[in-house]
Amino acid sequence: MSVFGERIKISVFGESHGRYVGATLEGLPAGFTIDFEKLLSFMSRRRPGKELTTKRNESDRPDIISGVLGYKTTGAPLTILISNSDTHSSDYSDIERIPRPAHADYPAYVKYGGNNDIRGGGHFSARLTAPICAAGGILMQMLEKAGISIGSHIYSIGGVFDAPFDPVNMSTDILESLKASAYPVIDKTRLDLMLKTVESTRERGDSVGGIIECAVIGMRPGVGGPLFDGLDGSISKALFGIPAVKGVEFGAGFSVASMTGSQNNDQYYYDSEGNIRTVTNNSGGITGGMSNGMPVIFRTAFKPTPSISLQQDSVDIVSKENTRLEIKGRHDPCVVLRAAPIVEAVTALSVADFVTD
Amino acid sequence: MSVFGERIKISVFGESHGRYVGATLEGLPAGFTIDFEKLLSFMSRRRPGKELTTKRNESDRPDIISGVLGYKTTGAPLTILISNSDTHSSDYSDIERIPRPAHADYPAYVKYGGNNDIRGGGHFSARLTAPICAAGGILMQMLEKAGISIGSHIYSIGGVFDAPFDPVNMSTDILESLKASAYPVIDKTRLDLMLKTVESTRERGDSVGGIIECAVIGMRPGVGGPLFDGLDGSISKALFGIPAVKGVEFGAGFSVASMTGSQNNDQYYYDSEGNIRTVTNNSGGITGGMSNGMPVIFRTAFKPTPSISLQQDSVDIVSKENTRLEIKGRHDPCVVLRAAPIVEAVTALSVADFVTD
Amino acid sequence: MSVFGERIKISVFGESHGRYVGATLEGLPAGFTIDFEKLLSFMSRRRPGKELTTKRNESDRPDIISGVLGYKTTGAPLTILISNSDTHSSDYSDIERIPRPAHADYPAYVKYGGNNDIRGGGHFSARLTAPICAAGGILMQMLEKAGISIGSHIYSIGGVFDAPFDPVNMSTDILESLKASAYPVIDKTRLDLMLKTVESTRERGDSVGGIIECAVIGMRPGVGGPLFDGLDGSISKALFGIPAVKGVEFGAGFSVASMTGSQNNDQYYYDSEGNIRTVTNNSGGITGGMSNGMPVIFRTAFKPTPSISLQQDSVDIVSKENTRLEIKGRHDPCVVLRAAPIVEAVTALSVADFVTD
Amino acid sequence: MSVFGERIKISVFGESHGRYVGATLEGLPAGFTIDFEKLLSFMSRRRPGKELTTKRNESDRPDIISGVLGYKTTGAPLTILISNSDTHSSDYSDIERIPRPAHADYPAYVKYGGNNDIRGGGHFSARLTAPICAAGGILMQMLEKAGISIGSHIYSIGGVFDAPFDPVNMSTDILESLKASAYPVIDKTRLDLMLKTVESTRERGDSVGGIIECAVIGMRPGVGGPLFDGLDGSISKALFGIPAVKGVEFGAGFSVASMTGSQNNDQYYYDSEGNIRTVTNNSGGITGGMSNGMPVIFRTAFKPTPSISLQQDSVDIVSKENTRLEIKGRHDPCVVLRAAPIVEAVTALSVADFVTD
Repeated sequence: MSVFGERIKISVFGESHGRYVGATLEGLPAGFTIDFEKLLSFMSRRRPGKELTTKRNESDRPDIISGVLGYKTTGAPLTILISNSDTHSSDYSDIERIPRPAHADYPAYVKYGGNNDIRGGGHFSARLTAPICAAGGILMQMLEKAGISIGSHIYSIGGVFDAPFDPVNMSTDILESLKASAYPVIDKTRLDLMLKTVESTRERGDSVGGIIECAVIGMRPGVGGPLFDGLDGSISKALFGIPAVKGVEFGAGFSVASMTGSQNNDQYYYDSEGNIRTVTNNSGGITGGMSNGMPVIFRTAFKPTPSISLQQDSVDIVSKENTRLEIKGRHDPCVVLRAAPIVEAVTALSVADFVTD
Repeated sequence: MSVFGERIKISVFGESHGRYVGATLEGLPAGFTIDFEKLLSFMSRRRPGKELTTKRNESDRPDIISGVLGYKTTGAPLTILISNSDTHSSDYSDIERIPRPAHADYPAYVKYGGNNDIRGGGHFSARLTAPICAAGGILMQMLEKAGISIGSHIYSIGGVFDAPFDPVNMSTDILESLKASAYPVIDKTRLDLMLKTVESTRERGDSVGGIIECAVIGMRPGVGGPLFDGLDGSISKALFGIPAVKGVEFGAGFSVASMTGSQNNDQYYYDSEGNIRTVTNNSGGITGGMSNGMPVIFRTAFKPTPSISLQQDSVDIVSKENTRLEIKGRHDPCVVLRAAPIVEAVTALSVADFVTD
Repeated sequence: MSVFGERIKISVFGESHGRYVGATLEGLPAGFTIDFEKLLSFMSRRRPGKELTTKRNESDRPDIISGVLGYKTTGAPLTILISNSDTHSSDYSDIERIPRPAHADYPAYVKYGGNNDIRGGGHFSARLTAPICAAGGILMQMLEKAGISIGSHIYSIGGVFDAPFDPVNMSTDILESLKASAYPVIDKTRLDLMLKTVESTRERGDSVGGIIECAVIGMRPGVGGPLFDGLDGSISKALFGIPAVKGVEFGAGFSVASMTGSQNNDQYYYDSEGNIRTVTNNSGGITGGMSNGMPVIFRTAFKPTPSISLQQDSVDIVSKENTRLEIKGRHDPCVVLRAAPIVEAVTALSVADFVTD
Repeated sequence: MSVFGERIKISVFGESHGRYVGATLEGLPAGFTIDFEKLLSFMSRRRPGKELTTKRNESDRPDIISGVLGYKTTGAPLTILISNSDTHSSDYSDIERIPRPAHADYPAYVKYGGNNDIRGGGHFSARLTAPICAAGGILMQMLEKAGISIGSHIYSIGGVFDAPFDPVNMSTDILESLKASAYPVIDKTRLDLMLKTVESTRERGDSVGGIIECAVIGMRPGVGGPLFDGLDGSISKALFGIPAVKGVEFGAGFSVASMTGSQNNDQYYYDSEGNIRTVTNNSGGITGGMSNGMPVIFRTAFKPTPSISLQQDSVDIVSKENTRLEIKGRHDPCVVLRAAPIVEAVTALSVADFVTD
């Protein structure tokens, strides 16, 4: 089910080419005033660089139809609707028979017996990240009030890497300045190369993948729990809920596999203010499934957008023959350019679910 | 909570130095006969190469105290007890004040207000993987009856890599032969080097990390679901439930971030038997959160065992001073040597939860 | 949370005086065609005898905004919106300070710190039964296709009793004929007296309670489960989800408390067609938390509508003084007249959650 | 599944004739010291008047095998084992073919395909109320520390009624004195008649039903929630989890159906200490699914024990013929005599689940 969370639950609905996409948040505290302008600003980060991405005009203005009075939460379920204003159903006639490689088309066809809405990917569309961002954006505001900030940057696109976060020296300022950028990178000199990579890929009718690195700062130690109640397990489940994600790693991540314990272990010390900190942060701020007081840091790998202009092999599930497929229209060559707020939003879903504990 | 699953639920209990660790499985079908010898054999894989690992003698014989008649499931909750026969509580007196780096000690201390059982890590101990393996081992037998096999190999230890799975040519035979090995590797020539790495690390009083690669074969297309109901999200959450896991990636994983769509997209074709397959398997058998009929393949990064003999910096939470810590006793220099069945077991928890759909 | 169900989940949102009330259904099978006219007809039963009830014009036409193509389910979350077309916010200015007796006002004020929407009861309003009926009405259609019918009648109003169901001789015909009546009763001679009771109560500015008796026929034996997974526990939880419900009993219900085992035990026999049946049905079709193949029968007690025209004692929570309250406007003197479809709808939520097992 | 609760979860396992019955509690706070003697005393109330009930010697001493250090909770899952010391499997040979009327035998046979453990009712046995009482007894101690007391009395047996609770004048003293009685009744003059009724029923080889009335005092207003998150819905689901329960009503219960709003509405006033109270308590302390600050009061109807010595009609599911059944052995003529602590225990499961909110 398109549901996440135990204490704060989100239920996401809608299809790419339906009238609305939306989400309901259950379990919100009453009396929190949503800064709607800030929410719109957050959501606009999902659509930067329109010149590079798909042309579809998504105004994405969330309409909060329940659970608020004015913009103050009432404690009742909060439902968000976002209109799908510009849907060209006629564009998707081919894929009814010919599943697009690396899309959900084929397994969805089997799962739903051919009854699912295939137009634009239906409920599997990245369009569903719009209500997720609206919901996550609200939770991020609540978390900020509790001293917890979430931010992220484009860590790589097509093999061009930004500088990584300094895992022991994070600040709200760094995260805020990233949010102020159309394309959040730490080392601005790398951005140009990233954008050139995207542009040249687009010109070839192709697409390209990348990595988002995300940080959560301000969490007290002890948030999370043992075994299957871990904060890392919850965040990773939330991240894999984003279409196109293929990998998640915390702290030193996969590189820990080549390290020794003496290299990897983050040793404790009291800083000058009497806080317990670690010298390194290979754990990414999580040990034993719980936050340890250091910044929570993780990376999420996005595959290249599966929709490309180049011809591909596929099958015709009606005639049961091999065939070729060409996906018409203009395609987003790199979802990673606009993935940062999505990563932040689903992280907020996970963190808020724990923090209300 | 130490709970996983929606349709088949596992609840895990116990502490490293309590009398028992155990688990309850809810939602099992009635009438399945557990092959108990096979289950013992599966669980023994959690303890290969005793000469290399901790000396603690864990007989690990699961006692199924409910939910079966003989070894046939009744449909009632199935509870497994495993005795902790050899627990030296006296060994853990120091860590009450001085949290061990990279262990759960410190955040658990904060979360539970100092009331948690710290002996051997308590409920955070890797000892809890014993009942998880017992439960997962039962589910693996049920899945096998449904034509689904789960297997894995040690993909790397300390930078020494095995050959990877061939993601488009997997068979039950390959998985079975891996299970027959004390240390499952594909390229046996690499094992010696891995073991030497572990041995030399141990001699230095250090530990080393590694990667397990796992495959699930025989799943029909369409298992899983959209957004937060994805098979990948569920498997990753299960995997992060294993202590020491720091990263999870499916198929081409993090390397997709440097690929183009035309490289990454797994193109479809009908094979000679009329089955839809893909030429490559960069998706690791999952697209749109659902199995696509190809082998499900993923890798899990394990950090080096945090317990090492070398002196480390830490803090004394009573005197609130920086201090040094030496963890006495003999330590497991590489959990990855015995991690394959654990990865398989938690994968079974996730897959079985979906397959009963 | 306003959520019900494990396998088929409903999430209900909206407030009495918001723009919409609605619900999302998760876990529906794909490929079921909703008979929309039949759904409208079912929902219209929630508003019979408008001359007797509140004047508010609730058109209640459900708008299915996701999860369908035409009226065929796609397997994606199905969201229903119903407009609140006629909301007089000005009517509710008093109750901000003076909680209405037997309404949710006072405990909601404490729970939400005064932030909840009090207009018309907000999220606690009986208005929320409209989307519940829409969702339940869809599930009833699915259950009917699986051979399961749900029907109910007004068993009593203000002490005037209808004839009870014959618990061993139920048929779809009986249930269908009840659905065809504006006010479903078995013994039509009793209806006139019921309506007179309601009318005289209304004239006094008062209200009156009643009982709905409901039956589910066509369930195979064995639906439900032990202990907290019982069908009876699930149905009762669903029923108490309806505002104004104060009691639930199955079969012989509270009268079993005065019976002996030899009177109460429903003895088994094979009927002429080889089906196992019971001579009596004191169990109301449920033993051990599971359906036993006989009609599932239960009664639900509704309190009188708390809104009455008569002056009542209450408190002013601002001045902290005792005071008097007069609730203006025209009030529904008897919700029981239109409660039958609501009882059927929530029963469908519960039954459908099990039947998909 | 044999699971209850969202924030504090109980998972119950075991069978009547297995080696153990037990339960795991998840989500308990750390640092609470269980008064074990008090727990034993509470559990002993489940077995008063042994001379009247079944002879089976159930020592029922709970063994807490995880989640505590000494008797202090650690925050890890707390698992309780209770041995089944005296199980006569040979007594149950007949019922394999001939389901006992009003028992779970027949529907369980269908549900589990004949694989369930039928000895003594297996997982459907009232024996499972022993671990439920152990778990609930622990939660009652925690609730008491939070100022919340739960108590109950035998309201009726076989038509002999005790005096009811005074719903507006409850005190901890009343509840404590009830707990101190072998058979908790308010009007002790009625007890003798109750016991005589049970005794004469037993002599006839029959059994008799009854009603338990239960109160929860000390709850702050606003515990619970709207619609399906109501405190009443949760308590009723917990109560129907007890074998033999056929009805649940809150406050004035089914009698509200014959009342007018002006009779039923509980009018508010400030008492001399400035607390908001109601003049009457027809709501049973719950309005809009939330506690309103008055005592929470409800009644639960128990059917007569289905096991009786008298011959009954049943069917032979192997030969498919009608037959007669005589259940051998000595039977408990009235479970209601020992049902009070069970009702209190499941109520604690429900209340504790909300209070941790």
